[in-house]
Amino acid sequence: MPSDFIQAAAAVVGSEAVLTGAAAKPYCMDWRGRYSGDALAVVFPSSTLQVSEIVRLCAARQIAIVPQGGNTSLCGASVPLPQGTQVVLNLSRMNQIRAIDAINYTMTVEAGCKLAALYEAAEKTNRLFPLGLTAIAPHCEIGGNLSTNAGGIGVLRYGSARDLALGLEVVLPDGRIWNGLRSLRKDNTGYDLKHLFIGAEGTLGIITAAVLKLFPRPQSTATACVAIASPEAAVRLLAYIRATCGQALSGFEIISRNCLDLVFKHIEDTQEPFKRPYEWYLLIKIDDIQQNDDALRNGLLGFGGEVLAFSIASDTRQAENWWKLRKNISEAQKREGVSIKHDIAVPVSRVAEFIALASNALRGRFAGIRIVAFGHMGDGNIHYNASMPEAAQNSSFIEQYEHEVNRIVYDVVAKLGGSISAEHGLGQLKRCAIRDYKDPLELELMRTIKQALDPNGLMNPGKVI
Amino acid sequence: MPSDFIQAAAAVVGSEAVLTGAAAKPYCMDWRGRYSGDALAVVFPSSTLQVSEIVRLCAARQIAIVPQGGNTSLCGASVPLPQGTQVVLNLSRMNQIRAIDAINYTMTVEAGCKLAALYEAAEKTNRLFPLGLTAIAPHCEIGGNLSTNAGGIGVLRYGSARDLALGLEVVLPDGRIWNGLRSLRKDNTGYDLKHLFIGAEGTLGIITAAVLKLFPRPQSTATACVAIASPEAAVRLLAYIRATCGQALSGFEIISRNCLDLVFKHIEDTQEPFKRPYEWYLLIKIDDIQQNDDALRNGLLGFGGEVLAFSIASDTRQAENWWKLRKNISEAQKREGVSIKHDIAVPVSRVAEFIALASNALRGRFAGIRIVAFGHMGDGNIHYNASMPEAAQNSSFIEQYEHEVNRIVYDVVAKLGGSISAEHGLGQLKRCAIRDYKDPLELELMRTIKQALDPNGLMNPGKVI
Repeated sequence: MPSDFIQAAAAVVGSEAVLTGAAAKPYCMDWRGRYSGDALAVVFPSSTLQVSEIVRLCAARQIAIVPQGGNTSLCGASVPLPQGTQVVLNLSRMNQIRAIDAINYTMTVEAGCKLAALYEAAEKTNRLFPLGLTAIAPHCEIGGNLSTNAGGIGVLRYGSARDLALGLEVVLPDGRIWNGLRSLRKDNTGYDLKHLFIGAEGTLGIITAAVLKLFPRPQSTATACVAIASPEAAVRLLAYIRATCGQALSGFEIISRNCLDLVFKHIEDTQEPFKRPYEWYLLIKIDDIQQNDDALRNGLLGFGGEVLAFSIASDTRQAENWWKLRKNISEAQKREGVSIKHDIAVPVSRVAEFIALASNALRGRFAGIRIVAFGHMGDGNIHYNASMPEAAQNSSFIEQYEHEVNRIVYDVVAKLGGSISAEHGLGQLKRCAIRDYKDPLELELMRTIKQALDPNGLMNPGKVI
Repeated sequence: MPSDFIQAAAAVVGSEAVLTGAAAKPYCMDWRGRYSGDALAVVFPSSTLQVSEIVRLCAARQIAIVPQGGNTSLCGASVPLPQGTQVVLNLSRMNQIRAIDAINYTMTVEAGCKLAALYEAAEKTNRLFPLGLTAIAPHCEIGGNLSTNAGGIGVLRYGSARDLALGLEVVLPDGRIWNGLRSLRKDNTGYDLKHLFIGAEGTLGIITAAVLKLFPRPQSTATACVAIASPEAAVRLLAYIRATCGQALSGFEIISRNCLDLVFKHIEDTQEPFKRPYEWYLLIKIDDIQQNDDALRNGLLGFGGEVLAFSIASDTRQAENWWKLRKNISEAQKREGVSIKHDIAVPVSRVAEFIALASNALRGRFAGIRIVAFGHMGDGNIHYNASMPEAAQNSSFIEQYEHEVNRIVYDVVAKLGGSISAEHGLGQLKRCAIRDYKDPLELELMRTIKQALDPNGLMNPGKVI
């Protein structure tokens, strides 16, 4: 049967578009190097019809499918399990921009389009596609962005991937094609099915194309680097700046001092933003049609003494230098060594409480632990990573205590009404943990939906649910 | 069994909160006076627990439930069918605002809160709740707004009801309570179930509470009244103003000349906005933190000759006078007589094409037909109503040709990739029509979901699906 599948698949997509053995291996390893599986084959369809036919072939043979885009999942969602019985269905060849309607502020794109290509296409028609995953934009693909409801730096203003999609085309588990490619701002004609597939990590069907919202290109950007007295003050400053600058506020990122220490240690050509060091920094970005340096300056001046220092970028270069610090935190951490990573969200009003409670709990339990905290404070989303400073000590620490560290952090998250995966999804990584933190009734509803739409369980089994 | 239900229900909610017979009648008629049903009883629970218990009583007896809020549905979604076997579950007593978190820009509210009460509560904490259904806000309730994914005047900037909900509490068809009241901006831990219940018009469960997004209160509003050469020019002006004024653009409404004629005829104290009449008008609204009269003025001046005349309101009173024209179109139409109403959406770029094609088709088929077109052009959503000017002729026209008029309009909508119900839902009114215009596969998926979540079909049967 498997060899029969490979032949049949080659007849659909061409034999050069079916990889097996060593050639398939790179598509079986995840981005972070944490999960390594094995596939019966990796298949590269180039059209929705081909996806449909491959899915039919799999359904007839009860072969499970792992949909894959740029394979940049941080949770192991896009790689096969180890048994070698699953087919990876890679959508990278489906990379056409089918239509751009600048007047409607929409574009219709195929799942395999690189995010960076979408930025460019939007820019060419004087529009903005605001899904802000700048670091991985050359690699990740929009089908994966939608399947994981990707977030990034622009969520505060523009929303997550889910909020940017008006319509979807989906190949269902039985191979039929649902054409929901509507480009409407309003449509109240029944259940909004697209929201089932967005964020489902390929467990209910395969997103093959989407209609995406576009936005006006901001004409003026103001960026401030701020030293702030505490996370508590940062929480209040955020609410204050929203009230002062309104929807123009497009970024509000928090960075702890030791993030910067790691960046200065590992990343070339990076500088202290102020003459003296501070414990907590913010990067605040305002995008608007009009000039708005003054609005941001007045907002920061009006807030009072807890703003310890601030500076508004005088030119693009200065702003870029500051953002370079923020964007290199993950890379600097990687060079420093492995850490136990968390991608959590709590209500924006409780971010400071989360940082205090989690840090106290971890420091109380593990003397000398290093906590690196940063992220999208404007969305209540903190990347909160723990490690031991000494490399040797660190690896045994992680091996021995990862589960306990997770438990401590997740318990604080749960206490504050938060989420243990704000923007990275569940994949394989958090598939089990979520069972301890989600209402059993909600898990049951998820299983009911899964059973109704994928009764044979062939869509990305072993992920999410 | 039915009398046993009434006794059992009274034991849960109190006998004064169970209405039958004549007392129940007002809750069985719809807002537009088009649907009149009959109920076994109307029950008024005052808490989620009571809703849960009433639903269990119904489930045990296989009694169907019609969830009801302010009963302002325009499609007959919130009234029972004629047989007198369904229970109306009215949520108006569940009207508590459970929490407001100004720092998190959220509030947690019960389903029976009047929309107007939510405006007030938000304002008290210097926040905005932007769901813009100003005319019916004193009557409609947030549970119904969410269940029908209500739209209104602010969608262009703030989105529909769906976009304003972060979390839900839902009583499921078996009476169990799903607590999804998360107040998070990001949460990627599985299927986003809230989107199933929002817009489902009570056919999958009963929304009992929600966490809603709040926004900064705009400090400055600019309103322009514009005479525009044609709908085509209006489409282009919209794209141009979006690019010029960005996300501050919060309203872009189109009004045809005969809408104003009806308003002047039927509504007291209304004035022509310009010295001479024009064929098409726009009301454009910009809300921002900063002054922006100039941005709007420059945008309109920059667009060119197709802007025939415009005026920026010099004070709130002038702006209110213009909005009075817009807001009274429905009332003026009602006083003029019955009409065949449509609530359609097409891509924003195709609004002018829709108006031209539908009007040509209708005028070609029905000599002397009067078309009243207005609405949320910024969302591609046009209220498009047809009637005959003479009252006597009109009633026989509607009786005889309503179906054919619908068919002509809907066919144009379908051709342009539009929706036959942009913001009012399906209810009873369009439940059959949608079967001709929606992909059969999508209808099948909807039935699959319905079957999975409400296998006994007890939630608002006869509506939507």
